[in-house]
Amino acid sequence: MTSTLILLRHGESEWNAKNLFTGWVDVDLTEKGRREAVRGGELMRESGALPDVVHTSLQRRAISTACIALDAADRHWIPVRRSWRLNERHYGALQGKDKKQTLEEFGEEQFMLWRRSFDVPPPPLDDDAEHSQVGLPQYDDLGDEMPRTECLKDVIARFLPYWEGSIVPDLRAGHTVLVAAHGNSLRALVKHLDRISDEDIAGLNIPTGMPMVYELDDDMRPTAAGRYLDPEAAAAAAAAVANQGR
Amino acid sequence: MTSTLILLRHGESEWNAKNLFTGWVDVDLTEKGRREAVRGGELMRESGALPDVVHTSLQRRAISTACIALDAADRHWIPVRRSWRLNERHYGALQGKDKKQTLEEFGEEQFMLWRRSFDVPPPPLDDDAEHSQVGLPQYDDLGDEMPRTECLKDVIARFLPYWEGSIVPDLRAGHTVLVAAHGNSLRALVKHLDRISDEDIAGLNIPTGMPMVYELDDDMRPTAAGRYLDPEAAAAAAAAVANQGR
Repeated sequence: MTSTLILLRHGESEWNAKNLFTGWVDVDLTEKGRREAVRGGELMRESGALPDVVHTSLQRRAISTACIALDAADRHWIPVRRSWRLNERHYGALQGKDKKQTLEEFGEEQFMLWRRSFDVPPPPLDDDAEHSQVGLPQYDDLGDEMPRTECLKDVIARFLPYWEGSIVPDLRAGHTVLVAAHGNSLRALVKHLDRISDEDIAGLNIPTGMPMVYELDDDMRPTAAGRYLDPEAAAAAAAAVANQGR
Repeated sequence: MTSTLILLRHGESEWNAKNLFTGWVDVDLTEKGRREAVRGGELMRESGALPDVVHTSLQRRAISTACIALDAADRHWIPVRRSWRLNERHYGALQGKDKKQTLEEFGEEQFMLWRRSFDVPPPPLDDDAEHSQVGLPQYDDLGDEMPRTECLKDVIARFLPYWEGSIVPDLRAGHTVLVAAHGNSLRALVKHLDRISDEDIAGLNIPTGMPMVYELDDDMRPTAAGRYLDPEAAAAAAAAVANQGR
């Protein structure tokens, strides 16, 4: 028996559009992002990839994307589960900074190290900084686990317990699971599923608003490569993500 | 210790606007309904009545109202629970019919009996009728409990087990609970809380998109009358609901 897993990165956010590092800052979708979410839901409905349960981060852009896409897919009524472990990577002191300015200020090497290195996080964000999330009620329970910055390795470390403890049980129960999340929490998931090396994951970019479907066997291994429901649009969008900051 | 319960009837739906009996037909909000939901969320945020958990029906207009209002209240991230037991009353063979035409065709007495009598349901809806919900995946689990018509007494009978089994436990755990639902499932709840008689409940109308707050004691009895966060707007809107079909 195989299980079906659908990944959906949130549609364009206000800070995607402004080319700012966002991370844990809780920005909204743009109108374009809402249209992407509708289209993502329509693709699910048209293809018959219909989720029975949805998992989201605690962030507005993923939650709104899930609400909008599920409504368009006629699956608005399915159970919802949420966790901070599906949040975007915490970008530390880069949160709120312009990507192009950061590239010019720190140079290509440092910029790409912060954006794409596996285990070098940006400098941590001060708790009293404008774009800190310390003290927000949705993160009250985190205690010592509250991040001030993260590299992809850190994201994987906090994502995997939720994968094993909450998402895999839903898959094993026979549910078609939608994970509505973020560029880096979904890269963590794809790295895990496709056993991508620490080096090669730097080259993987996940476009916004494009549902990607995996069939998983009993060992939770993909029976084939993940497939986008709209492959041509996904390829074009992934190329655009790779060029951010240029 | 008191617990806080917030009731929110969905904003105006497409069929509220067209003056049709809706019941279990899964219509969308109008733009006005979306604005009402935003306003409801803003009222929660401004008043500090901030839910920790939300319960919705399985119907689009309540689910969208919850998504929109919680986003406006900055509480988009709270846990979500859903049940068909919070659905609107099933209006049987009246579903899809124009309220004014029904009033003219059947006369004031029969019309008000169907709309507001406690224990007289409309004629049942055929399973193969256009506006039947039999066979929809969200109701797969209902089996023999799937209604074909309901009076308010029936709504109370299917609502109370969910109140006792799912909402009260959240209240006892100290959560501020938002119930985003429908005119008649919320009338069932208010009748129960305020011990309104089977006769007097006919006169109670709940306006769309207006959060109403109850403080409940340890026995889940209200410490005072429920209060609307915007009492003047609620009074005007309730009067309008009472005059539907005129």
